[in-house]
Amino acid sequence: MKKLIKGATILTMRDDKLFNGDILIDGDNIADIQTTITAEVDEVIHGEGMVAMPGLINAHQHTPMSLLRGFSDDLKLMDWLDKKMLPAESRMTPEDIYWGTKLAMAEMIKSGTTTFADMYIHMNEIATATEKVGMRASLTRGLVFLENDGGRRMSEAVDLIRRWSGKAEGRITTMLGPHSPYTVPPQSFKEVIALAVQENIPIHTHLAETKEEVIKIREKYNQTPTEYLYHLGLFEKAHVLLAHGVHLNQRDIRYLRGMRGGVSHNPVSNLKLGCGIAPITDLTEQGITVGLGTDGAGSAATLDMFEEIRAATWLQKLDYGDPTKLPAIDALRMATVGSAESLDIGHEVGTLEIGKKADIILIDLRKPHLQPIHNINSLLAYCANGSDVDTTIVNGKVLMRGRQLLTIDEDELLKQVSLRSKRIVDGI
Amino acid sequence: MKKLIKGATILTMRDDKLFNGDILIDGDNIADIQTTITAEVDEVIHGEGMVAMPGLINAHQHTPMSLLRGFSDDLKLMDWLDKKMLPAESRMTPEDIYWGTKLAMAEMIKSGTTTFADMYIHMNEIATATEKVGMRASLTRGLVFLENDGGRRMSEAVDLIRRWSGKAEGRITTMLGPHSPYTVPPQSFKEVIALAVQENIPIHTHLAETKEEVIKIREKYNQTPTEYLYHLGLFEKAHVLLAHGVHLNQRDIRYLRGMRGGVSHNPVSNLKLGCGIAPITDLTEQGITVGLGTDGAGSAATLDMFEEIRAATWLQKLDYGDPTKLPAIDALRMATVGSAESLDIGHEVGTLEIGKKADIILIDLRKPHLQPIHNINSLLAYCANGSDVDTTIVNGKVLMRGRQLLTIDEDELLKQVSLRSKRIVDGI
Repeated sequence: MKKLIKGATILTMRDDKLFNGDILIDGDNIADIQTTITAEVDEVIHGEGMVAMPGLINAHQHTPMSLLRGFSDDLKLMDWLDKKMLPAESRMTPEDIYWGTKLAMAEMIKSGTTTFADMYIHMNEIATATEKVGMRASLTRGLVFLENDGGRRMSEAVDLIRRWSGKAEGRITTMLGPHSPYTVPPQSFKEVIALAVQENIPIHTHLAETKEEVIKIREKYNQTPTEYLYHLGLFEKAHVLLAHGVHLNQRDIRYLRGMRGGVSHNPVSNLKLGCGIAPITDLTEQGITVGLGTDGAGSAATLDMFEEIRAATWLQKLDYGDPTKLPAIDALRMATVGSAESLDIGHEVGTLEIGKKADIILIDLRKPHLQPIHNINSLLAYCANGSDVDTTIVNGKVLMRGRQLLTIDEDELLKQVSLRSKRIVDGI
Repeated sequence: MKKLIKGATILTMRDDKLFNGDILIDGDNIADIQTTITAEVDEVIHGEGMVAMPGLINAHQHTPMSLLRGFSDDLKLMDWLDKKMLPAESRMTPEDIYWGTKLAMAEMIKSGTTTFADMYIHMNEIATATEKVGMRASLTRGLVFLENDGGRRMSEAVDLIRRWSGKAEGRITTMLGPHSPYTVPPQSFKEVIALAVQENIPIHTHLAETKEEVIKIREKYNQTPTEYLYHLGLFEKAHVLLAHGVHLNQRDIRYLRGMRGGVSHNPVSNLKLGCGIAPITDLTEQGITVGLGTDGAGSAATLDMFEEIRAATWLQKLDYGDPTKLPAIDALRMATVGSAESLDIGHEVGTLEIGKKADIILIDLRKPHLQPIHNINSLLAYCANGSDVDTTIVNGKVLMRGRQLLTIDEDELLKQVSLRSKRIVDGI
C-alpha cells in the first residue's frame, strides 16, 4: 500500500525549517519527502492548507484512568487518591480497562497523538486495545512493592514483556515499571534494574513529583529521590524514562547528566495538582532529554498534547520572568523528538525522515484562530488545539481522516464508557 | 421572533447546579427557563447532549491585533513592542482595523465568546464591525498622553461615546480608556475621571502588568501603580475595569476593596510574557470582582476563553501548592458573571435568567475528550476548548450554528486577513 500526502506545509522536526511538499508512504515507512513527488499510489491525501508534522508522543500516561476524568478534581492530593481514585480503581474490571484505554486512544488520535507510554495494571487488555486500534505504545506494568504481592506484579510485568514486546507489527514496545522511589524499596528496585539489563528494556518510573515525596525519601534514606535512584545504579545501567522530575536541585540534575533516556515533563498535571514547576530549562542546558506527557486523565483531565506544549513554554517563561524561554519550536521538539528519545524509539519516530515509520499528523490551519500565518511554529504551540488535527496516521495506516475515527466505533465507545463509568463510581 | 432551546443541560451560573431543560428566547431576551417549555416558536434549537451556559465575556482585548498573531512571540517585551508591534501597528489602515476586528470576532464567536471589552484606536471601524457581526462589546479609545496629541485622542474618545453608546440594538457600550499609570500623567488622568463621572461611563485601564511598571511608577511618584490611581480618586469616583493587576501587594488590594467594577485577569498573556501570577485568590477573598480576558492576540496568541479559564485555575493551584484553589466553577464564574460585572453589564448578561439578554452558548459534550460525564463543571473548565462550542447566540440572534458562522463570510475573511497581514509586516 502506497500513500501520498500532497501539497502540505511540512515540519520534519529535524530542524525548524518548513517547506511545501509531498510525503510518500510505502507500507509502514516514510519512503520519500520532496517538494514534488510523482508516484503511482493507492491513496492520495490532500494536504493543502495543512501542516504535516510528526505525530505527538505522550511520554507518560495511565490510559484507563480516562474513565475517571473529572471525577475528583479540585481536591487535596490525599483526598483525591484515598477517597476517590483508589476506591474507584479497585472496581475496574479487565473489560473496563479495555474500554478506558479505547476512550483514551480515541481522544489521543483525535488530538494528534500517535504514541503513548503507559504505566498501569491489566496490561494485557491495554495491549489488546492498542493492537486493535493501531496506535504505537510503550507499555509498562506498574510495580509497587509496599504490600506482599510484589512477586505477582513482577510476574505480570515479565508476562507483558514476553507476550507483547515487538508485537502489533512492531508498534508495541515494553518497559519495566518500578513505580517510584517511595513505593519501591532498594532491594526490589535493584532486582528490577537487573532484570531490565538482562532483558535489554528500559525502565519507566515516577521521580520527584511532589514536595511530600522529597520529604519522605529524605526521612527514609537521607537522600533526595534522585540520589536514591542514582545510588541504586539506575541511570548508569538502564535506559530510563523519568516521569515528572519537578523537585530536582542542581546536584540532582548533575546526577542525571549523561543518562540514556529522558524526563517526561507533565506540566498540566503538575499545575492542576499544584506540584510546582519542573526545571526544564536547567535539564536541557545540561544536555538531558526532555519529553512531554499528560499523566492520566484522572489528574490532568485532558490528553491534548497541545495543552502540554503550551503549558511547558508558559511555565518556563513564568519561572524566569522571561518570554524568550522555551520558544515554540523547542516545546514542539519536546512533544516529538524529546518524547521519542525518552521512550527509546527515536530511531523509528519523532521526526519525518525517509526510512522512519510513517507516524504523521495533518493540522488544518484554515481557521480564524490559526490565521494569519506569520509563524507556523507559533500557531502550533500557542494557538492550535487537538481539534485542529484533521488526519492522524500511525505506522502508515490512517487512524483518523477528516476528524472521523477509522478504527474505533465512537458511538459504541461512548455508550460503553457511560455505562461503565457510572457503575465504577456509584456510591463513592 | 421566538426560539426554543430544547433538552440541554443548563448551567445558569446563578449557582453551580445543573439541570436538564429548555430555554425560551423572545426577541433579544430570555423569556423562560424550565424543565419543559411548550410554546409556539419560530425556531427550535436542539440541545440534546449539550450544555447551555451564558456566553463567555472577554474582559480585556485589543481586537485588531489578531492580524499580528504569532508575529512576535518568544521575544523580550521591549523587542516585542519596539521592533515588532509598534512598527506593524503604525502601518495598519482603518480598513485593516475593520478586518482585524472581524478576524478576532470570528475566533471569539467560534470559541463561545459573546461579549468583549476592547481598547484600541480607530474605534469607529471596530464599532462598525461589531454592529454588523452582532457581538456585544464595551469599546474604549486608548488614551496615551506621553506625546502632544492627547487632545486629539480625547476628542476621538468623546466621539466614540457620542456616536456609539447604546447603539447596535444596545449591544455596544463605551468606556473611557486612560491607558495606564505610566502613560497618563496625574492632571490628564484627573480630567478623564471627571469626564467619566460627568458622562456616567466606566473607565478601562491597565494596572500593574509588569515589574518594570512598578519600578517606573515608584521612581516617578514614589507610589505603587495602585496607590497612584487611588490618590487620583479613581476607585472612589468611577466604575473601573482594571486589566492585569499582576503586581499588587496587600495594601494595594485593600485600596481596591469596595470599588465598583473589577479586575480583568489575563493569565495566558501574563504567562506568555513572563509577567507573573496575579493574586486572584487574595482579590476575591477581599470581595473584589475578578473577570477573565485574553489581552490582544499579538501577545496572548489565542482568544479562546477556555484557555484562560484553565490557566486561571492552574495558576492559583500552582501559587499556593494547593489543588483546591480556584475550583472549576469559580473559574467559570469569572469568565461569565465576573467579567459581566467588571464591564458594568451584569444586569444584562453573565447568567441565564428570565429577563436578561439571550447571550447563550451550546457546548457539545458528545466527544471522547468530554466523556464520561462525572462532573460537567470540571469538563468545561479542564477539558473543553473553543472548538467544542456548537452554537453561539448573542442578543437572541444565532451567530454560529453547528460551527458555521452566520454573520461572517469566513472565506472572504481569511482572504482579506492573509493579504493585509502580509502587507503590514512586510520588511519588519
